[in-house]
Amino acid sequence: MTIKDIARISGVSVSTVSRVLNQHPDVSEDARNKVLEIVERYNYIPNNSARALGQSKSDNIGLIVRGISNPFYTSIIHEIEKDIEDAGYTLVMQQIASTADELLAGAMMEQDKRLLGLIFLGGRLDYTKEQVAAIDIPFVSCSSNNAYGTLDSDSYSSVSIDDTQTAYEAVKGLYQGGHRRIAVLLSRPDDGSVSQIRYEGYVKALTEMGMAPEEDLIISVGSYNIADAYQGMLQWLDRGISFDAVFAIADNLAMGAMRAMRERGIEIPKQCSVVAIDGIEVSEYMAPALSTYCQPMEQLGSTSVQLLIDLIEQEGAHQQVVLPTVFRQGGTIMER
Amino acid sequence: MTIKDIARISGVSVSTVSRVLNQHPDVSEDARNKVLEIVERYNYIPNNSARALGQSKSDNIGLIVRGISNPFYTSIIHEIEKDIEDAGYTLVMQQIASTADELLAGAMMEQDKRLLGLIFLGGRLDYTKEQVAAIDIPFVSCSSNNAYGTLDSDSYSSVSIDDTQTAYEAVKGLYQGGHRRIAVLLSRPDDGSVSQIRYEGYVKALTEMGMAPEEDLIISVGSYNIADAYQGMLQWLDRGISFDAVFAIADNLAMGAMRAMRERGIEIPKQCSVVAIDGIEVSEYMAPALSTYCQPMEQLGSTSVQLLIDLIEQEGAHQQVVLPTVFRQGGTIMER
Repeated sequence: MTIKDIARISGVSVSTVSRVLNQHPDVSEDARNKVLEIVERYNYIPNNSARALGQSKSDNIGLIVRGISNPFYTSIIHEIEKDIEDAGYTLVMQQIASTADELLAGAMMEQDKRLLGLIFLGGRLDYTKEQVAAIDIPFVSCSSNNAYGTLDSDSYSSVSIDDTQTAYEAVKGLYQGGHRRIAVLLSRPDDGSVSQIRYEGYVKALTEMGMAPEEDLIISVGSYNIADAYQGMLQWLDRGISFDAVFAIADNLAMGAMRAMRERGIEIPKQCSVVAIDGIEVSEYMAPALSTYCQPMEQLGSTSVQLLIDLIEQEGAHQQVVLPTVFRQGGTIMER
Repeated sequence: MTIKDIARISGVSVSTVSRVLNQHPDVSEDARNKVLEIVERYNYIPNNSARALGQSKSDNIGLIVRGISNPFYTSIIHEIEKDIEDAGYTLVMQQIASTADELLAGAMMEQDKRLLGLIFLGGRLDYTKEQVAAIDIPFVSCSSNNAYGTLDSDSYSSVSIDDTQTAYEAVKGLYQGGHRRIAVLLSRPDDGSVSQIRYEGYVKALTEMGMAPEEDLIISVGSYNIADAYQGMLQWLDRGISFDAVFAIADNLAMGAMRAMRERGIEIPKQCSVVAIDGIEVSEYMAPALSTYCQPMEQLGSTSVQLLIDLIEQEGAHQQVVLPTVFRQGGTIMER
């Protein structure tokens, strides 16, 4: 049912229906009653989002969260949910495995839930134009951008930190602290995700410092799970490769690796420094507290919602927003 | 719009509409086309939940999560979301502060989103009949029951562990390990939440062992937040009360307290044993790994959804399901 159907059935003009739905005062009592009667008869949702009616759509905004066990997402999701509700929309959320295809999930959700817009949290960075063609509504990539994709910058929106630059700074900091055998702990170095783009920062820093990146110092654990990082680190340690620092591309991976090192008798930071990116709350409660570059989680969420609503309501322009990180001094770095 | 409206407008019987919507084969091509035309004209959701149309409702099931920062909920939420989608419904989720009123939030969501049913995760245990009268749809309490409320057992559904018994076993275990100064770390001992019901188990164990519970050994931090547990524990330690063990009513609180003890030079488990309830993944990565009684998180979620769908679809009977916990041996308990 569209706003036109309501106008036709109630016998008033489309603009009158619009005024009633938007609670404008300049509508006759009679016309208002007619419109509201139809709205009631057809059991329309008594919500504050008349937009949804006008477009013959729901008031649903979708959120696809990729990589369900990453605690980094918790406060971002909370902020997104709050802001979407505050703006009068309904959040429909779906969590998918980090190996699943968020564009396919988004396209299906768009149809099933008649979405007005979509936010992808933790998505890939390598969308092609052909792949996103399946999505017919505005979408915003939250915490990732399209660094490896083929989208034109005026055709998509994203809100993220500068992942490569942050990783570069973290590794440069280790180098300046005297470390020369810096391992990198990641999901995969070539998966088109945040893992890859942070790995690029690691390579950039090493190269700039005149050190060639070594295959042996790449610890690929295949996911962002703490348990996989723990197991992957144990296996890597068994290879006996010498190292004096670990740059973990995510707090969650660092926490798993710290347990593995502890169990193998490696003292942090005395024998090995650890630095990461993300800044989740619980990593500050590790022993020692993790030194890490914190993402502005609430701001990542709120900016994504704001961008998306501008796209939905005002056909705003696409932008790629980059937010700054803040270093949190823990106890996992010691100068050599 | 109800199934009757569709029948009236399309000029076929109500049962024919029902057969079309449920994709029964025994409908004439002509009648099917008429019904589908109306469905399309009024832009009905092409989903697999004809129930929603028949009842002139949405296919929404609500989930209210109370206490947003508790990582204990993450895998329960994921399971609930998965099972609700698999059953052909749409999950509408809202996270509220642990101080907020989940019944009020539920009543508002019921109206706004035209819910078929509700799941409360992390709610209070002291609902009165008057309070739940605001909720007109079936609901299930997940991870809490109505131990302190006035609801009749045949009038509400819940899925939880036996909180008092688990706390009792944890504290009895500490006693049998030679501990005689056992502190309890909790949100509040009298807040009508899981904090209180686990505190009862602590009191029961001490009493049974012939020890009087002491006011001085109750560490009330006012929330389930890790940061509040850390601060509350620091303040309590400054009072200089002697103790040899801490029973934390939640993993999250234990992790905050362990950091506080570490910073004050208290060695775990040598000087103080720690045991908790919940069994979240990250607490196993603490140094030492937390010894804790694990809740069956996925089963809590899946059983709640199953109960609720039975209530919605088949008007099933209310039940209070109690699931078992499993002890996870960490490194935070040492016999005296």
